Amino acid sequence: MTPVDRIGFELLARDGRARLGVLRTGHGEVQTPAFMPVGTRGAVKTQGSEDLERLGAEIVLANTYHLYLRPGVELVGDQGGLHRFMAWKSVLLTDSGGYQVMSLAELNRVDADGVTFQSHLDGSAHRFTPESTTAVQARLGADLLMCLDHCLPAGADGDAHAAAVRRTSAWARRCRAVYGAEFRTYDYPQALFGIVQGGTSEELRRRSALDLLALDFPGYAVGGLAVGEPKAATLATVELMDALLAEDRPRYLMGVGYPEDLVRAVGRGMDLFDCVLPTRNARNGMAFTRRGRRVIRNAGFARDPEPLDPECACWVCGRYSRAYIRHLHQSGEILGLRLVTYHNLNFYLELMRSMRAAIAARRFAAWEARFFECYDAAAA
Amino acid sequence: MTPVDRIGFELLARDGRARLGVLRTGHGEVQTPAFMPVGTRGAVKTQGSEDLERLGAEIVLANTYHLYLRPGVELVGDQGGLHRFMAWKSVLLTDSGGYQVMSLAELNRVDADGVTFQSHLDGSAHRFTPESTTAVQARLGADLLMCLDHCLPAGADGDAHAAAVRRTSAWARRCRAVYGAEFRTYDYPQALFGIVQGGTSEELRRRSALDLLALDFPGYAVGGLAVGEPKAATLATVELMDALLAEDRPRYLMGVGYPEDLVRAVGRGMDLFDCVLPTRNARNGMAFTRRGRRVIRNAGFARDPEPLDPECACWVCGRYSRAYIRHLHQSGEILGLRLVTYHNLNFYLELMRSMRAAIAARRFAAWEARFFECYDAAAA
Repeated sequence: MTPVDRIGFELLARDGRARLGVLRTGHGEVQTPAFMPVGTRGAVKTQGSEDLERLGAEIVLANTYHLYLRPGVELVGDQGGLHRFMAWKSVLLTDSGGYQVMSLAELNRVDADGVTFQSHLDGSAHRFTPESTTAVQARLGADLLMCLDHCLPAGADGDAHAAAVRRTSAWARRCRAVYGAEFRTYDYPQALFGIVQGGTSEELRRRSALDLLALDFPGYAVGGLAVGEPKAATLATVELMDALLAEDRPRYLMGVGYPEDLVRAVGRGMDLFDCVLPTRNARNGMAFTRRGRRVIRNAGFARDPEPLDPECACWVCGRYSRAYIRHLHQSGEILGLRLVTYHNLNFYLELMRSMRAAIAARRFAAWEARFFECYDAAAA
Repeated sequence: MTPVDRIGFELLARDGRARLGVLRTGHGEVQTPAFMPVGTRGAVKTQGSEDLERLGAEIVLANTYHLYLRPGVELVGDQGGLHRFMAWKSVLLTDSGGYQVMSLAELNRVDADGVTFQSHLDGSAHRFTPESTTAVQARLGADLLMCLDHCLPAGADGDAHAAAVRRTSAWARRCRAVYGAEFRTYDYPQALFGIVQGGTSEELRRRSALDLLALDFPGYAVGGLAVGEPKAATLATVELMDALLAEDRPRYLMGVGYPEDLVRAVGRGMDLFDCVLPTRNARNGMAFTRRGRRVIRNAGFARDPEPLDPECACWVCGRYSRAYIRHLHQSGEILGLRLVTYHNLNFYLELMRSMRAAIAARRFAAWEARFFECYDAAAA
């Protein structure tokens, strides 16, 4: 790959509000819109880096909270960083760990300076500050890092959201102050993204976005959505973000979502996505297909000789039947989890490829109509 | 592959007592001595048929007891047989189910006509007879089938062994009477193997072998060993079997074993082996290496950048460090189980390839001495 001096984003085309772009990094290019498989603990569950290459994944997300607790950031750093540790040659994005602290850790307590929490593994006490999580992510060797933000659960009130926005802005400034927004702690460039908060309040989202834009980050994430709010509110907020955020920087919609959510968000100007759905639901026996979701454990598939998705070209669909994969799931065979996971990731990555092609051809609206004609989002 | 009219075995070379051979079937050749990965429920745990191809496995074993209970033999038959069901193009051997009935099923009761048992899954009542397990295996579509035998636990007394030998001989006759020793229920040849019992008694082993040889089976299995008896007794019995069994038929030593056991049994004229050790122990974090066993969970590997086995050419060793694989195991990541399983199977299959090359070059004794010089069977 061509060495890059700095991480850069190029907007190649707009079709309606949908964007086609390319993110250039020291670990290769990411064609956007892109879906990032989630490698929580330095592994996308059941899949190796070789599988991810075969899937054509260009970027993977890893969770700072989990890696910080185990095996520990110093160990990963001493092994040459997370790329080398997990044998992943392409792009890595890490989150700040803030979301997991709020959702997984016990007895977490947020104050102006950071957040104190107990490990969900052993109850040990820890503290994340804007400075420490930035340093941790840098040491992990992520290409793209996230500022520590204050993410609230759905249902938090307006005052709480206003305070979280102020805190998130203050923390973003402190994260940026550690190394700047672009830096190197390894022999390749690393870039820090700001995260917009504000729930579904237009006023707070606007304030959060303006605060972060003033800090001139090389990319922006939209946090605090898909946490239980109505879908219409999610989409309205995404549209607002599209209108407010810098045109020449990538926009990452965190934690979204189902295929239909990705399609709607791409149509509203978002570029990067991550979600555990294709991997977690695979382990519960749910397969994504071009016609909608299928619960492969259902008795109706017991003698079904068709592949998971007859319209899919992945190797799993080329080789195995629903009947066999159902048998594996019924029998508790790990191979069953692995096969559906691979297929689901292929479905998501293929969905993104298909959307990119539609945007490039300036046919996204027709593509979207066709997608919803085939894909039954209600069926499972 | 060349179509074959019938399953045939050709003995290509003897070096000392070690044998080099080839088994020709409707699903390709098996170079012997060969190790058969165990695909208990129609899947080698964590591995797909594509992985088995990459490993160069030529034959896989599946357990009749498990497949009979779930998903059921009619379902597998209706899907075109086990080869098609599990997408495995090469050779399949099934056991009779008798061993699992004795070891897994509850309330099993053996009588002259067969064995009655309760499913370990749901307690439902079932019965296996020589006729029924032969028909079940035929319907599964195995290339190589096993006669129902009466296998005793270690420590059974001489009278019990004598009765088990008589019963095993009577059952072998009845198994053979169903379709003959060679037949077709699919469009390829299927062959039935007899199983020699008799514990570690020379007299009983001799009687059992003579009974079965009189039935002229296309292959012979040695059952009832590696069930807890002293290793010297195992080896003495293997040597006796080598002396008694037909030179021109393959000999399958059931359920053996550790790498050192395979080496010693190959040196005593055995051709086929199966064992859950490389797969089961992998899931407990034990890796086989050219220097001996390694428990990858051990803290000493936490920062070890070396591959599982620095002398191994498998893709897992080409890509991942002990530190990473240990992290996966410590974190309960399925990928960790999968990577060690692949490596261990590669170790076993490579061990067999290496022994075959040594026999072909008439250098087996030197090869064996060198193996034990490097491989520390005591270390773990």
